[in-house]
Amino acid sequence: MASQVDKTAVPFDKTALEGVLNRRFFYAPAFEIYGGTAGLYDYGPPGSALQANIIAEWRKHFIVEEGMLELDTTIMTPAPVFETSGHVARFADWMVKDTKTGDVLRADHLVKNVLEARLAGDKEARGVAAQPAAEDEKDKKRKKKAAKSAAVKLADEVVTEYETVLAQLDNFSGPELGELCRKYAIHNPDTDNEVSEPVQFNLMFRSSIGPTGAYPGYLRPETAQGHFLNFSRLLEFNNGRVPFASAQVGRSFRNEISPRAGLLRVREFTMAEIEHYVDPGDKSHPRFAEVRDTRMVLLDRGTQAGGHTTTRELTIGEAVDQGVVANETLGYFMARIHTFLLKIGINPQRLRFRQHMANEMAHYATDCWDAEIHNSTGWTECVGCADRAAYDLTVHSNKTGHPLVVREALKEPIVEEKDVPEWNKKVLGKTYKADASKITEAVEKLDQAALAEVKKALEGGKATVTLADGRQIDLTPEVLTIPRKTLKTSVREFTPNVIEPSFGLGRILYTLLEHSFWIRAPTKDGERAERGVLSLPPLVAPTKVLIVPLSAKEEFDPLVAEVSAKFRKAGIFSRVDDSNASIGKRYARNDELGTPYGVTLDFASVQKRTMTLRERDTMDQRIGPIDEVIATVADLVHHRIDWEGACARLPAYDGVQAVE
Amino acid sequence: MASQVDKTAVPFDKTALEGVLNRRFFYAPAFEIYGGTAGLYDYGPPGSALQANIIAEWRKHFIVEEGMLELDTTIMTPAPVFETSGHVARFADWMVKDTKTGDVLRADHLVKNVLEARLAGDKEARGVAAQPAAEDEKDKKRKKKAAKSAAVKLADEVVTEYETVLAQLDNFSGPELGELCRKYAIHNPDTDNEVSEPVQFNLMFRSSIGPTGAYPGYLRPETAQGHFLNFSRLLEFNNGRVPFASAQVGRSFRNEISPRAGLLRVREFTMAEIEHYVDPGDKSHPRFAEVRDTRMVLLDRGTQAGGHTTTRELTIGEAVDQGVVANETLGYFMARIHTFLLKIGINPQRLRFRQHMANEMAHYATDCWDAEIHNSTGWTECVGCADRAAYDLTVHSNKTGHPLVVREALKEPIVEEKDVPEWNKKVLGKTYKADASKITEAVEKLDQAALAEVKKALEGGKATVTLADGRQIDLTPEVLTIPRKTLKTSVREFTPNVIEPSFGLGRILYTLLEHSFWIRAPTKDGERAERGVLSLPPLVAPTKVLIVPLSAKEEFDPLVAEVSAKFRKAGIFSRVDDSNASIGKRYARNDELGTPYGVTLDFASVQKRTMTLRERDTMDQRIGPIDEVIATVADLVHHRIDWEGACARLPAYDGVQAVE
Repeated sequence: MASQVDKTAVPFDKTALEGVLNRRFFYAPAFEIYGGTAGLYDYGPPGSALQANIIAEWRKHFIVEEGMLELDTTIMTPAPVFETSGHVARFADWMVKDTKTGDVLRADHLVKNVLEARLAGDKEARGVAAQPAAEDEKDKKRKKKAAKSAAVKLADEVVTEYETVLAQLDNFSGPELGELCRKYAIHNPDTDNEVSEPVQFNLMFRSSIGPTGAYPGYLRPETAQGHFLNFSRLLEFNNGRVPFASAQVGRSFRNEISPRAGLLRVREFTMAEIEHYVDPGDKSHPRFAEVRDTRMVLLDRGTQAGGHTTTRELTIGEAVDQGVVANETLGYFMARIHTFLLKIGINPQRLRFRQHMANEMAHYATDCWDAEIHNSTGWTECVGCADRAAYDLTVHSNKTGHPLVVREALKEPIVEEKDVPEWNKKVLGKTYKADASKITEAVEKLDQAALAEVKKALEGGKATVTLADGRQIDLTPEVLTIPRKTLKTSVREFTPNVIEPSFGLGRILYTLLEHSFWIRAPTKDGERAERGVLSLPPLVAPTKVLIVPLSAKEEFDPLVAEVSAKFRKAGIFSRVDDSNASIGKRYARNDELGTPYGVTLDFASVQKRTMTLRERDTMDQRIGPIDEVIATVADLVHHRIDWEGACARLPAYDGVQAVE
Repeated sequence: MASQVDKTAVPFDKTALEGVLNRRFFYAPAFEIYGGTAGLYDYGPPGSALQANIIAEWRKHFIVEEGMLELDTTIMTPAPVFETSGHVARFADWMVKDTKTGDVLRADHLVKNVLEARLAGDKEARGVAAQPAAEDEKDKKRKKKAAKSAAVKLADEVVTEYETVLAQLDNFSGPELGELCRKYAIHNPDTDNEVSEPVQFNLMFRSSIGPTGAYPGYLRPETAQGHFLNFSRLLEFNNGRVPFASAQVGRSFRNEISPRAGLLRVREFTMAEIEHYVDPGDKSHPRFAEVRDTRMVLLDRGTQAGGHTTTRELTIGEAVDQGVVANETLGYFMARIHTFLLKIGINPQRLRFRQHMANEMAHYATDCWDAEIHNSTGWTECVGCADRAAYDLTVHSNKTGHPLVVREALKEPIVEEKDVPEWNKKVLGKTYKADASKITEAVEKLDQAALAEVKKALEGGKATVTLADGRQIDLTPEVLTIPRKTLKTSVREFTPNVIEPSFGLGRILYTLLEHSFWIRAPTKDGERAERGVLSLPPLVAPTKVLIVPLSAKEEFDPLVAEVSAKFRKAGIFSRVDDSNASIGKRYARNDELGTPYGVTLDFASVQKRTMTLRERDTMDQRIGPIDEVIATVADLVHHRIDWEGACARLPAYDGVQAVE
C-alpha cells in the first residue's frame, strides 16, 4: 500500500520556494544580466512546460469541450480602437512623485503600505502578534521601513480611522488619495520625502505604427477587443446564430507604475479570454444542468457592503436560483472555471468567488465575479467572470457604423396593423423646399396615437405639425396621407450580450506553485537536510517521468534510448538525467521540478530487463519488467489508475543498493 | 478502390484562394471595421487551428524529439540589449518620401517595382508574353501603374542595364539607391512626384517602460536575444554540458515601411526559433547518420555568384562531405527542417535551400541557408538556418561582464612547467606606492621568453621593466622572484557557437495554403460551378472530421451528441454542421476549410446505426456501422491506414438519396 505523507510537517517557506523556482529556472527576471527590468519575467524550461500544459488543458476544457471559435489577433493596436473602448481615457492608475528624488509610486499602494505598516507598529507596541506568517521577507522589510519607527502605539480612534480607510481603498479618487497623504503625513517610505499630488498615468504601452509617426498605436492590455472587432466574421462562421463563444490565448501588456509582486503583477503576461455571445433576452444555458450541483465558495456583494468577508458554500444551482448569481450562463462559466482550477491542482480550500461591489464594477456590467486564489500575499484575483452586457459591441458599432448585431429569423413573423405616413414627394419638395426634410422627420417620429390625430386633422383638410426648431407648419392631404397598413416583421435584430471569463495565466501558475510546494522533513538520522517538493499533478507537471541510469556508463545507453523511445511513443514526456550526481540527488532535483515519477536503470535492468519506479510524494519504490513499468506509468499519467493501483501491479522494491 | 483526382484541371487561381481564405475567415486584415492597418492580420478559427496544429507538430518534431529546452521570454525589451546586439544601429531599411504628398516608400522596393514594370512594358511593346501567370491582380495593376505607359519599347542597352541593376538589388546602399532614382527618373508611381534622398528607418517598434519616460524599450524583432541572455541558466539546467538547444515559439514585431504582400510581409508575426549551442571545435552531430541520406535541392553560393539559379539535388551527407554545407550540425538541421516542411504538406517540388552569398550574410556568420518555398510571388524565405558563430554570446558578455561560456573538465589535465612572477607585496607597495599596480601589470603580461630575461637580470641583482606609459623602472630580487613551477589546467573555457534555425510561421502557413489549394472542375452536366478545395494533410487540417446530420431535426440530436463525444474521446477534433444548407453545400464549405473527412447521419443512422464516410479530395463515399466508421477515421487521422485501407474496410455507399 502507498504510504501516507504529511506535507505540513515543515511550515510553508516562501523563501525556500523562491529559491527552488529560481534555481530550477521555472522563471527568472528578464534581462537579468543587464540588471533586470521590474515586472518582466522569462519562463525557463520547467516554467514554459508548466504554462504550456496549463494552456493545453484550458484548450481542452473550454475550447474543445464547448466547440468555441479560437482566434489569434493582433497585439499592436491603432489608437482609435482604444479611444472607442474607453481605455485611452480611463485605463489608468494614480501615481505620486517623491518631491525630491522624482521616484514614482502608485498612490493607492503607498497609502495602503504606510497605513498597514503603522497599524502593524501599533500592534507590536501593544504586544499583539505582529505580521501574518505568510508574508515574505522583502515585504516585511518594506513595511517595517514604511512604518519608520517599528513599534509606535496609535490612539484608538486613529486605529479605527486607518482601518476604515483601508477597507474603502478601492473607492478613493486621485484627489482623495492626495488628501489622505496630506492628512496622515504619508511620505515616500524609502526617503521620508513628501510626495506630489496624484496624477493619472495611462497603463497602456504606446508606440507608433509605420514610418511617418502619424499613426499612434498601443499594445493591447487585454485580448478582448480583438474578439469584438471580429464579431461579424465570427457570427457568420457560426452560421449567423448565437449563443457561441470566441476564445483566445495571447500576450497582453500593462505598463504598471512600480510592479513589485513577482508574477502577481507584471508588465507583460499571457491571458486566456473567452467572449460568450448570448441573446440579452435569454441568458439560460443549455448545459447548466450538468454543473448545477457544483459546490462553490461565494463571497457576495451584500456581505462585503456590510463590511464582512464571510463566505458561504452553495451549489451554483442554488446561487442562480436565489439570485445571488445573475444568470445561468454566468453561473455555468463560474462552475466550469472552478472545475478547471481544481483539475490543474489549485487547493479548493484556498479558492473563492468574490462578487464585485456596485462601485467596483464597470458602469455597463451587469454582474461580475472574480475567482480569487489565496496565497502568501492574501487573496489574488486570478480569473474574472463578467457579464459585460452589450457595451463593447455597441460602442464599436456606433463609432465605425459597422453593425455588430444578430439578425434572427422569427419563427412566427409579427403581423401588425399600423398607420403609415405616405408623402407626395414632388409636391412636398416644391411647396416646402429646404424645410421638406425637417417636415418628414417631424412626422416620422410621431407615435401611433399622435399620427392618428394628424390623420384625423388631414381628413378635415389640414393638419399642423411642429418642427424640431419649434416652427409650426400646415400640411394638406395633397402632400401627406396616412393609410392603415398590415406590416409583417420576420427578422429580429439585437446586439448580443457578452459573458467574459478572463484568465491571468501567470497568476494561476504562481499560486499553483505555492499550493504545490512543501518541504520534506529531515530523516530521523538527521543526516539529510530539508528538501523542497513540488507536488504538481501529472496533468500539468513539466516532465512526467525521469529516466535515471545508475551511471553515465555506455553500457546503459541502449536501454536509456529504448525506454525514452517507448515513453515518447506512449505520448509521455520524459527526460534523462545521466549526470554524475548520485541517484538520490538526481531524484531530489526532480522533486523540486515536480516530476511525479522516476525510473532507474541499473545492472539488473541490463541483465533481467527490470526497472524500478519511484513515486515523488511518497518516495515509494516498486519494481517490474521494463514494459510493464512503462505501461503502469502511462496508466498513471492518463489517470486510468492511481498510485495504489500501481502498487497492486508492481511489487515493492527491496533491492540491495540504497538508491536514495 | 479510391478514384483518382486531377487537381490541376483548373489552373491555380490566386483570387479564388484569397476569396476562400477571406470568406472562411482563415485570416483577415486586423481592425478591418476601423479601416484596417497595413501589415497586421487576425487569424480566425480555421487559421488559428491550422497555426496551432503546425506549432504542435513543430514542438513534437524538434523540441520533444531532440529534448530541447523550451523558453518563453519577454517581448518588451530595454534599449541597451538591442544596442549591444547591433539592432539599434543596423536593423533598418532605406526609405524615400514623395516630395509633395509625404507618402513613404521603401527605396529598394520602389526601384524594383518601377524597373520591373518598365521591362514588362518593353516586353509588351516587343510583343513578348507579358506577366507570369501567377501574379495577383493588385500587383499587376500596381506594376502597370508604375510603368505609366504600359507598352513602351526600351533601347536594348537600357534593358541590359535594368536587368543588371535588378540582379544586384540587395547590394546597393541607401545613397546608391538614391542615385538610381535620379539616374533613371524613378518617381512615386502613385503620383508621379519625385522622391527624396533615401534615409534609414529603424524597423523596431519603440516604446517606453515605466511611468518616468526615462527607460526606452523596443518590441523584439526576433526571439533570439531572449535565448542568449538566459544562456548561463540554460547551461546550468543542462548540467553544464554542450551541445544542447533552446527553443521558443513567440510573437515578434517589425515596423515595416509599407507592407503590401499579405502574410508574406507583416508587422507582427509568430516565429519559432531554435538556438543550438555547440563546441566551436567540434560541429559534428551525433544523429547525423539518421539524416545523411535525405535528398535536398540546393542552390549554393558559387552558382549564384556566377549569376545563375540552377539548383542541384544532393543528399545532405554528400553536401557536407563536399563542403557545400559548412558542417554536420548545420546540415542536420537543414535536413530536419526539410522533413518537417514536407510532413505538414509543403510540395517538395517547390522547396529549395538557398545559401546566402558572402555579402548578404551577417559579418560574423560562418554559413547560412534559407529554406525557400515557391509561391505565386516567387521564391520566399520561410526558414533561415545560420551558423552565427560566437557573435551574440560574445557581445552580451563583453557588455555586461557576465561570462557566457562553457567550462569543460578536461579528461587529461594539461601539465606545464612555467616561470611565474611572485611579488613581495609589502615591499612593493612601500617602495613604489602608486606605481605598484602599473609595475605588476607590466610584468604579468610578459611572455615566457621575456620573463626568462627578467629572471636572468634579477639573478644579477637588478632588472629593468618598461611600464605602459613608457617609464622604465628598476626591480630587485627583494621585491620580485620568478620561480619555475608545475602548473595543471583541468578546465577548458570556451564560448559556444550557435546554429540557429528560425521559422516564420505565417509565411509557412500561407505558402502551405497555396500549395494545398486547387479547384474542382465543374461536373459534366454543367450544373455545378467550380469549387475550391484545400487539400491540407489531416495532421494540420483545422478540423479532422465534419459531422453532418441530414437536417436540424431533433431526432438526430442524440446521435450527433454520441458521435461527437466518441470522436472527442478518440482525440479527433470534429465539428457539427446542422445548418439548413443542403448536405452538398455543407460539404463544399468544408472542402474550402480543408476538412479531410465527413460523416453523414440520416434516417438509416437512426434506424440501423450506420453512417456514411466521405473523403474530401476524391469525394468517395463509404458506409458502415457508426463505431466502425469512427475507428476508421481514427486510423486515417493517426496515419495507421490510408484511404485505400479505409475502402478495403468499408463498402462504397450506393444510397438512394443523392447526398451531394
